[in-house]
Amino acid sequence: MADGYHGLMQTVQIFPVTGIPEVEPGNDVAALIIAAIETSGPEVQPGDVLVVTHKIVSKAEGRIFEAVDETAYRTAIEAEARAIIRRRGDLVIAQTRHGFICANAGVDRSNVTGDRAVLLPLDPDRSAHGIRMRVRQATGVDVPVIVTDTFGRAWRRGQTDIAIGISGIAAIDDHRGRPDANGRIMEATEIAIVDEIAAAADLAMGKSTAIPVAVVRGVAWQPGEGRLTDLVRSAGEDMFR
Amino acid sequence: MADGYHGLMQTVQIFPVTGIPEVEPGNDVAALIIAAIETSGPEVQPGDVLVVTHKIVSKAEGRIFEAVDETAYRTAIEAEARAIIRRRGDLVIAQTRHGFICANAGVDRSNVTGDRAVLLPLDPDRSAHGIRMRVRQATGVDVPVIVTDTFGRAWRRGQTDIAIGISGIAAIDDHRGRPDANGRIMEATEIAIVDEIAAAADLAMGKSTAIPVAVVRGVAWQPGEGRLTDLVRSAGEDMFR
Repeated sequence: MADGYHGLMQTVQIFPVTGIPEVEPGNDVAALIIAAIETSGPEVQPGDVLVVTHKIVSKAEGRIFEAVDETAYRTAIEAEARAIIRRRGDLVIAQTRHGFICANAGVDRSNVTGDRAVLLPLDPDRSAHGIRMRVRQATGVDVPVIVTDTFGRAWRRGQTDIAIGISGIAAIDDHRGRPDANGRIMEATEIAIVDEIAAAADLAMGKSTAIPVAVVRGVAWQPGEGRLTDLVRSAGEDMFR
Repeated sequence: MADGYHGLMQTVQIFPVTGIPEVEPGNDVAALIIAAIETSGPEVQPGDVLVVTHKIVSKAEGRIFEAVDETAYRTAIEAEARAIIRRRGDLVIAQTRHGFICANAGVDRSNVTGDRAVLLPLDPDRSAHGIRMRVRQATGVDVPVIVTDTFGRAWRRGQTDIAIGISGIAAIDDHRGRPDANGRIMEATEIAIVDEIAAAADLAMGKSTAIPVAVVRGVAWQPGEGRLTDLVRSAGEDMFR
């Protein structure tokens, strides 16, 4: 729980939060999440983690690109990219302003009404922090918030949800120097727990259903005030850029 | 559930399976898992997924490298590698015989008693299949099995658990051509659901506790008889090799 490791493992539960309407630019996404939780549950508890897909955050923040034809879509990708890492045919792997390396610089045409594409939030950590503060104010419970997106991987087919913004939780669950189950000091095990929580939350959301928020309960996370961008490898330690 | 998608999302639950002893070469790992489930639960139900960390599988299969000094460890890595992808100082990123690209060709010194290192199973899909058949025989329930390992990522710090062997479940949850929540046909969303389940299971296992097995309940997975190695990108479609 929030106070650090405990020896007793427990059941992890992931609750989909239903009843969040289609989000439009200017909407108060924190208010929509709070209302949905109040109406449909689950009541947030200390130790819970709130996971929010970035699309509703981006839409609320006006990070929508209108009237997308192919040319406009390509232009948006180039505009969002700080650097193009690889290009093959229509596929662009780019580094975003945040440092993330992903397909199409995070510009996404799926799950958006009409001919619009969604961009990543300008500062997803800040977005997560804003939601966390509002939820704390409304419920009295300080739950960490993880904002997620769906990314591909370098050497494996398929995509998984990962964290792109965090507040109130340590991104890395650092096992370096901690004895393992055999009393041996473990080497170089740094679990990206916020990415594991993001992936787990996606299992309760589905992709073709409109469930953009989940509450994850029972995970032994550690509090932290770092930024998700701490997870991004610098060019110097990146062997594949 | 096993019969495909349903519109109603439900709570996902991840149960750690406790009481599995230290595994030694020649042990019957399926029998140990079945005994632990019978003793401590949870009773497996149709729709559940059984997640097993590869280390107990590798140990039972004798995939242990004894008397590891640094030279022997380096030799084991070179022996396990089909190809070296990158090398920087002591860090080796290699392709394994299965096609996986990972640090140290999957040779791992953490969480092993004494001076031993664990290698990956020779055929993790086959290992998963063997456990699945034994669990079906013992319980009457055919649950898919995912064998996992902890891998790093190209551009992000930290590691997450992913699938290295599967049986009875489709590795990719293919949303291509399926309408999204707005009725729009989604583009290129292929969720690597077995990797999301692997990551989720790790949340209930922890790294410094000896919980090598979890039961995941409430995920809308699709049955399949493919191999996990289907997830490995061929050299031709790999932009980062």
